[in-house]
Amino acid sequence: MNETRILARFIAESQWSDIPQAIRHEGKRALLNWLGCALGGCHDESVDVALRTLQPFAGKQSASVIGRSDRLDPLNAALVNALSSNILDYDDTHMKTVIHPSVPVAAAVLALGEHRQAKGADLLHAFILGIEVECRIGNAVSPEHYAAGWHITATCGVLGVAAAAGKLLGLDSQRMIWALGIAATQASGLTAMMGSMSKSYNMAHAAKSGLIAALLAERHFTSSDRAIEAPRGFAHVLAANPKLDQITDRLGQTWELSWNAYKPFPCGIVLHAAIDGCLELREAHALTADAIERVDVRLHPLALDLAGKPAPTTGLEGKLSVYHALAVALLYGKAGVGEFTDECVRRPDVLALRGTVDATPDESLDKAAAHVLIALKDGRTVERDVPYAIGSLEKPMSDRALEVKFHELAAGTACDADELIRLVWSLDRIDDVSTFARATSRERQ
Amino acid sequence: MNETRILARFIAESQWSDIPQAIRHEGKRALLNWLGCALGGCHDESVDVALRTLQPFAGKQSASVIGRSDRLDPLNAALVNALSSNILDYDDTHMKTVIHPSVPVAAAVLALGEHRQAKGADLLHAFILGIEVECRIGNAVSPEHYAAGWHITATCGVLGVAAAAGKLLGLDSQRMIWALGIAATQASGLTAMMGSMSKSYNMAHAAKSGLIAALLAERHFTSSDRAIEAPRGFAHVLAANPKLDQITDRLGQTWELSWNAYKPFPCGIVLHAAIDGCLELREAHALTADAIERVDVRLHPLALDLAGKPAPTTGLEGKLSVYHALAVALLYGKAGVGEFTDECVRRPDVLALRGTVDATPDESLDKAAAHVLIALKDGRTVERDVPYAIGSLEKPMSDRALEVKFHELAAGTACDADELIRLVWSLDRIDDVSTFARATSRERQ
Repeated sequence: MNETRILARFIAESQWSDIPQAIRHEGKRALLNWLGCALGGCHDESVDVALRTLQPFAGKQSASVIGRSDRLDPLNAALVNALSSNILDYDDTHMKTVIHPSVPVAAAVLALGEHRQAKGADLLHAFILGIEVECRIGNAVSPEHYAAGWHITATCGVLGVAAAAGKLLGLDSQRMIWALGIAATQASGLTAMMGSMSKSYNMAHAAKSGLIAALLAERHFTSSDRAIEAPRGFAHVLAANPKLDQITDRLGQTWELSWNAYKPFPCGIVLHAAIDGCLELREAHALTADAIERVDVRLHPLALDLAGKPAPTTGLEGKLSVYHALAVALLYGKAGVGEFTDECVRRPDVLALRGTVDATPDESLDKAAAHVLIALKDGRTVERDVPYAIGSLEKPMSDRALEVKFHELAAGTACDADELIRLVWSLDRIDDVSTFARATSRERQ
Repeated sequence: MNETRILARFIAESQWSDIPQAIRHEGKRALLNWLGCALGGCHDESVDVALRTLQPFAGKQSASVIGRSDRLDPLNAALVNALSSNILDYDDTHMKTVIHPSVPVAAAVLALGEHRQAKGADLLHAFILGIEVECRIGNAVSPEHYAAGWHITATCGVLGVAAAAGKLLGLDSQRMIWALGIAATQASGLTAMMGSMSKSYNMAHAAKSGLIAALLAERHFTSSDRAIEAPRGFAHVLAANPKLDQITDRLGQTWELSWNAYKPFPCGIVLHAAIDGCLELREAHALTADAIERVDVRLHPLALDLAGKPAPTTGLEGKLSVYHALAVALLYGKAGVGEFTDECVRRPDVLALRGTVDATPDESLDKAAAHVLIALKDGRTVERDVPYAIGSLEKPMSDRALEVKFHELAAGTACDADELIRLVWSLDRIDDVSTFARATSRERQ
């Protein structure tokens, strides 16, 4: 088969009118969520280090750095913005592969789009196609690829970036083949890096490398014409038993963005259903902390193994503590970035409430489900069965909920969150995306 | 075990006085051969494309582009110079792994050395250590890694580059661990790219990525501390059955440069012994083409399978034709770049002489050996048994032969070959390598 060629032709020939309305809107949702994550992560120490390291070698400053006043050449801007957007682990997830599809692709198209003053619709079109490519290739190599130790967002992401950037550059089929090929031979990223700054650097490197691939291909730099499916190509070298047909099956009829989910809470995903249940009970019954006697939560045993830390002392540990997560949800009615800080896990009222949480493993529940029962001091009990958490494919975050999340993430920057939200929702009507890109780049005072 | 830590400490603590004289000299030989290859390849179309693509995004021009008047930032200079030096397939080979060790490492240390105005001895020291690291890691993952489709010069090269650049930057052990880690997670390169421009781009990407790794680590960008040996680290993810002990076994006592060989002829290595035999017979008996009746050559069957093209029509095909190779060796007394051009394979006198060559497979010969018998028109026969070709570890090219090769490769540029040769041999006494780097960069008229 010629998967590389078929995919390249599909991207090169795709028209904006081929993209269903629902997918266009999902693209905007993914972009809004991604931009929020970048704003939330842009002042991390690793971003400071990357900027200080790369700035002396950077070229003409034609691209914005999200959430900061720095400007860089588009290659380095793609790198730094991808880095920022993955730091909080708050980004989107393609549920079939655990790829965080927006991270590398959005970073690359934003930087290139600003540099070339692209139209908003072209940027969104390229972004949607890039996600399609990385996720389809991800489907083909899953689950063996990630299980072997490959950081799939980076390894498949570089191909998605090349596809998206290639589309924005208007490459024909042959040059799109080369863009995919040059990307494939740069595919890298080890999951051994998790827990270090290099975890997010994997995506950063993919964003920059994929962009270079498309730019080289534009000028006829050649690669293998069968980079994905060749015996010594991407799929066979980086995965056992790749299912190559998944790359081309119903191409243009189904869209991988349909399987994209957004995290409502920046903590272990196995806790989301329980948090969701607590938030719903709190609102339905106007619960206050001092009315609560005891919280009984049942979770799948695996969820408790992963996120059952009884006495977290740092924000990072709090993200893996059902006790902390339910305490903040009930106390504050939210579980956002501000509820998983070192300071918050040490607050006396949080400590007091987390002491009332009792978690029990329950094999009968799905890994993503939870059952919450709250015993009140007045003797009443209220309870909620949560088969699917908010943010799952079955119960997606609303546009409004994404906006609330965006506001929270943008709060640490000088950006105008309302303006950015408005720009994202109207992106396909913007003539020159550099206005949008520049609006993402403001220094906090 | 802690291979990453042991290796990092070894590099960080290594002193120039620890490097044996013979290895220092071998380092200079490797560097001279590498520089010649870069001069020979620097006007290839792929270098033009890479330069045109990257120049608009490049930073401050503090590094030389070999054989050209262009200047680039050191990251892009490392990329372009690595590209140039691999194009002719005339570079060195670490015989245990088939790594071409100088390509990425030399390109990176030259660019960084110029940028930071390093001392010549420091550059040579870093270069030797980089080769040590990439080849030891290559030993550990061979032969499974290359057999699986990994372009080993690129995948192991990026680690060698990080080690060398880290040494030149003076990183301590912890930061050297991170440099190796950031490099490991950028390791990429597929052998599927052979036959396209991306073959040499694999090395180019490795040179740039490894340099970025060292620069990030210098500023405390963190990675896994066990990037090589972790369960999801480089060795286990990119190879079946890695032999990790080969990374640290007798470290500092043996030197991988001892297994480095230089190609005397830019054609299939299986032809080298036969060419060598013809050149020796030609000289010993003052043979001229018109005196030759017939050339009988015996080669291992595999050598004939690989390089038995009877009627090559392009220079590239000539590189895999025993008939062409022996004809030019006997006719011109050499088999260099000029003898493997499209024009040369079509010359009437070459065609005439190649018609007298008769090649026979001989199972009893080693793959690297040859037997040559030349029947002369005066009735005499002369013959030569060649168990090892010139350029093999058993019969290395002399310094003088490397100089002749260098002159040939530098001829297409405006560089002063004699001056460069003098600078390489005296490299460890040069105070600031930017003089040397600038001397590599001259535009042809």
